[in-house]
Amino acid sequence: MSYPVLHVPPEDYGLLTDLYQLTMTACYVGEGLDERWASFELFTRHLPGDYGYLVAMGLTQALDYLSHWRFSTEHLNALKQTGLFDHAPAEFWPRLASGSFTGNVWAVPEGTIIFAKEPILRVEAPLWQAQIAETYLLNAINYQTLIATRAARLRDVAGPTAKLLEFGTRRAFSPQGAMWAARAALAAGLDATSNVLAAIQLGRKPAGTMAHALVMAFTAMAGDEDEAFDAFQRYFPGAALLIDTYDTIAAAERLAERIKQGQTQVASVRLDSGDLVELSQAVRSRLPQAMIFASGDLDEYEIARLQRAGAVIDGYGLGTKLVTGAPVNGVYKLVEIDGMPVMKESNSKTTYPGRKQVFRRFQEGQAVGDRLALMEESPAPGEQPLLQRIMEHGKVVQAADSLERIAARTAASVASLPASIRQLEAPDAFPVEISQALQQLTAHTSRHRVPQLSA
Amino acid sequence: MSYPVLHVPPEDYGLLTDLYQLTMTACYVGEGLDERWASFELFTRHLPGDYGYLVAMGLTQALDYLSHWRFSTEHLNALKQTGLFDHAPAEFWPRLASGSFTGNVWAVPEGTIIFAKEPILRVEAPLWQAQIAETYLLNAINYQTLIATRAARLRDVAGPTAKLLEFGTRRAFSPQGAMWAARAALAAGLDATSNVLAAIQLGRKPAGTMAHALVMAFTAMAGDEDEAFDAFQRYFPGAALLIDTYDTIAAAERLAERIKQGQTQVASVRLDSGDLVELSQAVRSRLPQAMIFASGDLDEYEIARLQRAGAVIDGYGLGTKLVTGAPVNGVYKLVEIDGMPVMKESNSKTTYPGRKQVFRRFQEGQAVGDRLALMEESPAPGEQPLLQRIMEHGKVVQAADSLERIAARTAASVASLPASIRQLEAPDAFPVEISQALQQLTAHTSRHRVPQLSA
Repeated sequence: MSYPVLHVPPEDYGLLTDLYQLTMTACYVGEGLDERWASFELFTRHLPGDYGYLVAMGLTQALDYLSHWRFSTEHLNALKQTGLFDHAPAEFWPRLASGSFTGNVWAVPEGTIIFAKEPILRVEAPLWQAQIAETYLLNAINYQTLIATRAARLRDVAGPTAKLLEFGTRRAFSPQGAMWAARAALAAGLDATSNVLAAIQLGRKPAGTMAHALVMAFTAMAGDEDEAFDAFQRYFPGAALLIDTYDTIAAAERLAERIKQGQTQVASVRLDSGDLVELSQAVRSRLPQAMIFASGDLDEYEIARLQRAGAVIDGYGLGTKLVTGAPVNGVYKLVEIDGMPVMKESNSKTTYPGRKQVFRRFQEGQAVGDRLALMEESPAPGEQPLLQRIMEHGKVVQAADSLERIAARTAASVASLPASIRQLEAPDAFPVEISQALQQLTAHTSRHRVPQLSA
Repeated sequence: MSYPVLHVPPEDYGLLTDLYQLTMTACYVGEGLDERWASFELFTRHLPGDYGYLVAMGLTQALDYLSHWRFSTEHLNALKQTGLFDHAPAEFWPRLASGSFTGNVWAVPEGTIIFAKEPILRVEAPLWQAQIAETYLLNAINYQTLIATRAARLRDVAGPTAKLLEFGTRRAFSPQGAMWAARAALAAGLDATSNVLAAIQLGRKPAGTMAHALVMAFTAMAGDEDEAFDAFQRYFPGAALLIDTYDTIAAAERLAERIKQGQTQVASVRLDSGDLVELSQAVRSRLPQAMIFASGDLDEYEIARLQRAGAVIDGYGLGTKLVTGAPVNGVYKLVEIDGMPVMKESNSKTTYPGRKQVFRRFQEGQAVGDRLALMEESPAPGEQPLLQRIMEHGKVVQAADSLERIAARTAASVASLPASIRQLEAPDAFPVEISQALQQLTAHTSRHRVPQLSA
């Protein structure tokens, strides 16, 4: 437990939870409820922003957590020393000490399109095990689902041949945040990340260009921007040259002249400032053979705007607006305990009770509607169930997908959606129907006896 | 290097950088520039959103990184296997293998108020060492500065006696992001975090209440919300009761009745949904002795609105809007190499050249203006220099501050600001003057011969 690093190695997963998960566990133990079989579902109440869909991501890290959390003697001592558990039942401590995850997990595969109110994942386990997992599971799935959704939207807008590079590490929220962003971005269709450690851990080749500092250093030492370009190409032939440090068009004109004189070759350039429409056109006319990369606070909306305005850009570096911003607000709610369906009925935060399945209806390869149903319901003709059994009795029962496979699933999932759901501005709501059986169960379970909830 | 965890232990710090930092290092080595003494400054071009100030944070993690990054044989092999360095100069590999940080760091202490264009930190080191550090330093300081600024604003709005609890782990961007958010929030004035691992690593007591799941589980099993409250209080006397799972006012009325009958005591309650103004007033009138906590997408603007509307709330749980959202966009720019000042002149991204100091002028304890100056300038009467020498020749020369000390510095820094800078809506710009000497150096250094830049 090494301050100041404040990272979360697997041996400390047990404590990576909100305090109340542990105090509630103590209460469950004291009251004999801790081993009751409980089901929690993870879902979002609303899609964030004006997103028409979400791309589920983060299951791999969720499973890693469930497979590894334990409570060591050191952990228990640290908890005791807080003084917060002085009245906890005696059996609380052995329960933690001997515990590991023994439950089941159902989830949609990573790269699956999902909509509001549809479970991304369900944990079925002894109540206390399912309870303490809430914090980490939400953390893992909320963030990667956000990044994957944005990556899928970027790919959808930029087209299949555009080079999309993840450059967000310096703006990501912690080093591990950067690593997870890189993973989710690659898994949902970006081509590469500049994060060397992430790329190597993920078995991919990192990508990048050059920074203004190199141009400035060479200009100061050698008096010439071109010397920076030549020097860099000596060691990285074909590397992208960053040409906007001083005067973009002048730099492009000098390079064009030097190409003509056989003094250099330019495979690609990067523009990081200025009017990307004008500059990309000016650079293309001067360096017609060079691939043009753009960067600088880009997102899918800006790429669409650049395209409409006639920019000629072959690749994009995506950073700040890919890896930060408003989150996916997934929640994790108890839906069944001891076989009894339950629901929350707080103002505007009502949940559907019971263990659920999502059936997606396809017509000629296109997704045309979802049905949120109870697990025991059967698919109608043309419907496919989305949630799959991933863990059984604490063991993972499906091999992890490769990033490439997840990326292919993401692309196919997006392609299966109607254009009106994929559009950036004011997308239509995908039709998600609540099954008759679920409506009846909801009405029956409600303490308020609400006859029917809207989807 | 353990996929799927994707975390960043200190032994892998070397590779936690953008690829171009390493390719530029190879170029510097090949061209004999790698050991030139270079200075980079970390600053923001603009304050984010409508913030009137920033609270610098993250230096502790930045120093941890600088003290520990190394390149192991395993790292070098992984880099070689990418094939990207096939033309790198032979001396590149021993340079990495033998490298560690041998430079100096100047920085403002954590908890210092800082404005746009003012350096938060400066690295002075052999060019390659300063270059590869960019990615991690920005990551560490950008995020924690964002969280600390929000925490300071929350404390400023909520007042010194409000209980402010950090509840953001489930929404934070990765587990380590949650840990860093907890640290920065506590260091800038929040009272506690619900993140157990973060609290323990930071030597603090975690905090929390109870979740809807507990209420729902007891209601399902025992048929009664009150049974959930009683059970929880058996093990956690005085714990806050979450009373909005079904009907907030009905729950408060039942508790009031049971208090009257001597059946229970209620020290505090939490409201997580509904109209917090009405509900808090209704609960206060029924449970006048109970402390009222509120949670649910709160931020400093919402707290101010609740206060104006007459809500009676004693404490707040801060999550999503504290730990996610738009980032602080710090940048890290070369300002001097081999004693020569340099500057970037890209469109609207121009930087000031040279090694700089910030002098803050105080009158009767109030900060009245800053002067961005060159390091060699002297403070005028009443001015205090903000940047301090933190590392010398790779060694930390100032003991790390405790969280408590940083929190005290944050509070004092905020208190020293005029109200017009602290206000949430459309704060004034704090006066930051550019010294005559820096203006002259800028004009002299510019290749465009821009006579004077606006602050």
